[in-house]
Amino acid sequence: METIVLKFGGTSVGSTDRISAVAKLIQQASKEAFPVVVVSAMAGETNRLIELAESFGSEPNKREFDALISTGEKVSASLVAIALNQLGLKAKSLTAAQIGMKTTAQFSKAKILEMDNEVIFKTIADGYIPVVTGFQGITATGDITTMGRGGSDTTAVAIAASIKSKRCDIYTDVNGIYTTDPRIVPDAKKLDAICIEEMLELSGQGAKVIQIRAVEFANKYKVLVRVLSSFEPGSGTLILQEENGMEDAVIRGIASQTDQTKFTLHGVVDTPGIASGILSPVSDAGIEVDVIVQNVSVSNKTDFTFTVATTDRSEVETVLKEKMHGISYDELIIDEEIGKVSLVGVGMRSHAGIASTAFKALADAGINIQMISTSEIKITIVIAQTQLEKAVIILHKAFNLGG
Amino acid sequence: METIVLKFGGTSVGSTDRISAVAKLIQQASKEAFPVVVVSAMAGETNRLIELAESFGSEPNKREFDALISTGEKVSASLVAIALNQLGLKAKSLTAAQIGMKTTAQFSKAKILEMDNEVIFKTIADGYIPVVTGFQGITATGDITTMGRGGSDTTAVAIAASIKSKRCDIYTDVNGIYTTDPRIVPDAKKLDAICIEEMLELSGQGAKVIQIRAVEFANKYKVLVRVLSSFEPGSGTLILQEENGMEDAVIRGIASQTDQTKFTLHGVVDTPGIASGILSPVSDAGIEVDVIVQNVSVSNKTDFTFTVATTDRSEVETVLKEKMHGISYDELIIDEEIGKVSLVGVGMRSHAGIASTAFKALADAGINIQMISTSEIKITIVIAQTQLEKAVIILHKAFNLGG
Repeated sequence: METIVLKFGGTSVGSTDRISAVAKLIQQASKEAFPVVVVSAMAGETNRLIELAESFGSEPNKREFDALISTGEKVSASLVAIALNQLGLKAKSLTAAQIGMKTTAQFSKAKILEMDNEVIFKTIADGYIPVVTGFQGITATGDITTMGRGGSDTTAVAIAASIKSKRCDIYTDVNGIYTTDPRIVPDAKKLDAICIEEMLELSGQGAKVIQIRAVEFANKYKVLVRVLSSFEPGSGTLILQEENGMEDAVIRGIASQTDQTKFTLHGVVDTPGIASGILSPVSDAGIEVDVIVQNVSVSNKTDFTFTVATTDRSEVETVLKEKMHGISYDELIIDEEIGKVSLVGVGMRSHAGIASTAFKALADAGINIQMISTSEIKITIVIAQTQLEKAVIILHKAFNLGG
Repeated sequence: METIVLKFGGTSVGSTDRISAVAKLIQQASKEAFPVVVVSAMAGETNRLIELAESFGSEPNKREFDALISTGEKVSASLVAIALNQLGLKAKSLTAAQIGMKTTAQFSKAKILEMDNEVIFKTIADGYIPVVTGFQGITATGDITTMGRGGSDTTAVAIAASIKSKRCDIYTDVNGIYTTDPRIVPDAKKLDAICIEEMLELSGQGAKVIQIRAVEFANKYKVLVRVLSSFEPGSGTLILQEENGMEDAVIRGIASQTDQTKFTLHGVVDTPGIASGILSPVSDAGIEVDVIVQNVSVSNKTDFTFTVATTDRSEVETVLKEKMHGISYDELIIDEEIGKVSLVGVGMRSHAGIASTAFKALADAGINIQMISTSEIKITIVIAQTQLEKAVIILHKAFNLGG
């Protein structure tokens, strides 16, 4: 039987009224294929549970913390199943333990290892809509794990991959993916489709409609994902494999981000291995480095610059002071007042002149570029935070992305 | 290793402050034997979940209802484990699924079939205090069940029986079992020990310190149970097997109850089988009948009287009208304004004159007796509700039960 996975996030199941609306969406979707539902905790519930846990001290036992916060999805899964039963549809909530969703034993950061399709298939064969708790799994020894914030998206895509669903619909509170943030650019256009590589780049740049790990999963297992709203009707945005033959727009969209801090090591003595000498201790501490730029060496000295999430700032400072051996430099400059704007599009690969068009548009507007980093399908530009919105508006216009 | 089961009710874990206090009690108890903890949901949590479920309609799907409300104990078990870890004790929360607490498949009224000691013993062997979710189990097919209100007591006693614990301590918000309700009789005395048969009678009469099913379980499997307070220090009340040689008090205590309704069928034509003709349809409807009295037949007609919980009144009326075939009577009299007072004590068996002492004391106080029912260790008297408190005070005094 053809199945479709429907995933509902925290705001989509944020109240009993919302859950009733979600039940009707599932009923609607059941006309297309047999629905398999994945739910997040009701909005606010996970935070309530975290507060309870932290009232005993700032570092609650990791196993127990996961066992605790995993109850949020159990509540919403049962409530969605109750609402579906009230509509006359047969439905069963299923926990991670019940479907054998096996993960690694890294509490709060667990990764999916395998799942047992049998329970889901049996539930469907019995005529029941499975309503699965997202965000969680169990270890080989039966301990409950969670997969970090947004993990429900990954659960949904993993199930869709495992049971070979025709599509995975991620219901959220936005009605699709836009060329850029509509709050900054009012005529930003909703995209009917985006290719998965572009989505990965946009998602990584703060366009957080869907969790990045879920997109990677979809990419790996060739799952067709759609992002759409549970609050208003609409067809959302399809996330396609590139080879699905979508039109190659030069630039698909523009992402922007402000919560980053820039570290510049000025006047580093240029010897082989300085990049790893600087960054290895940082990544060993579990800190994710975003943009990295090293300028050409002049007179045997170079400038090395990288950005990290601002929440990691103090940890990076400590690491640089204590763990960075054998690297000498003149000065460390830290700047939190940066903004990052990225142009994303697979068409970029075959079109020359994208970068120069972008740089010229920014220069004409008097915006100074601090860092540039490019990949095959993305150009990232770091500028002063005060100029970020202006830069997004100008670039959106320069590439005719408006609706 | 010698173990002791400690069970904490909803008010005992009603807040994070209370849970911290509970963790200290567990730490204290660990000096006596290795603790195995069973918890209820935080006070108010189960009602919150029931309200959520019922917001979709008055009869939520039974399987989902149980899956939903079972999350309450999961939250408190994790929080207790977190609090224990913060005290430097190793602890692990364990769900019904994790310990293989198998029950029947009657949702909301499940009965324990068997449990797997292995997980608890393994947890203990690894040096962790098990913190088990009370009130719930799983069916043979892995569905989550609950055992009805107060079921956590039964979970605790069942575990104590299964792992052969030295004792099962039921922590609650009262500091033991009293000769009668201290709110009615200020000099009511706390009992250091009570025998299990007396406890069963008192528990059935509304002295709801511990769930009746748990007491029956303890009786069957010879578990030593103690009832004590988690709010104030004290040794509570031990519930002993009778053969443990406790002093045979004539009367151990006095229970009273008001939420009962009396049905009298006046002028029933007296033929064989009238009792079952009247009561079988009532019990077939799942209604529990409490006191039953049939007067001696005069002139081929008799009066048949029984009491039920007042919440069942309208259902009993329906049953009597529709299902009671072949019984003819003159009049049906229904009285909600009754009170029930019971004298309980195993010593009663070997002492004559208890009943007459009681009846004389009530007569001297001008209290009219409507019904009398006796068993080997209990005398139950039904009177007008307005005179109930007075009757309790008088009987407590008549048998010198005061502290």
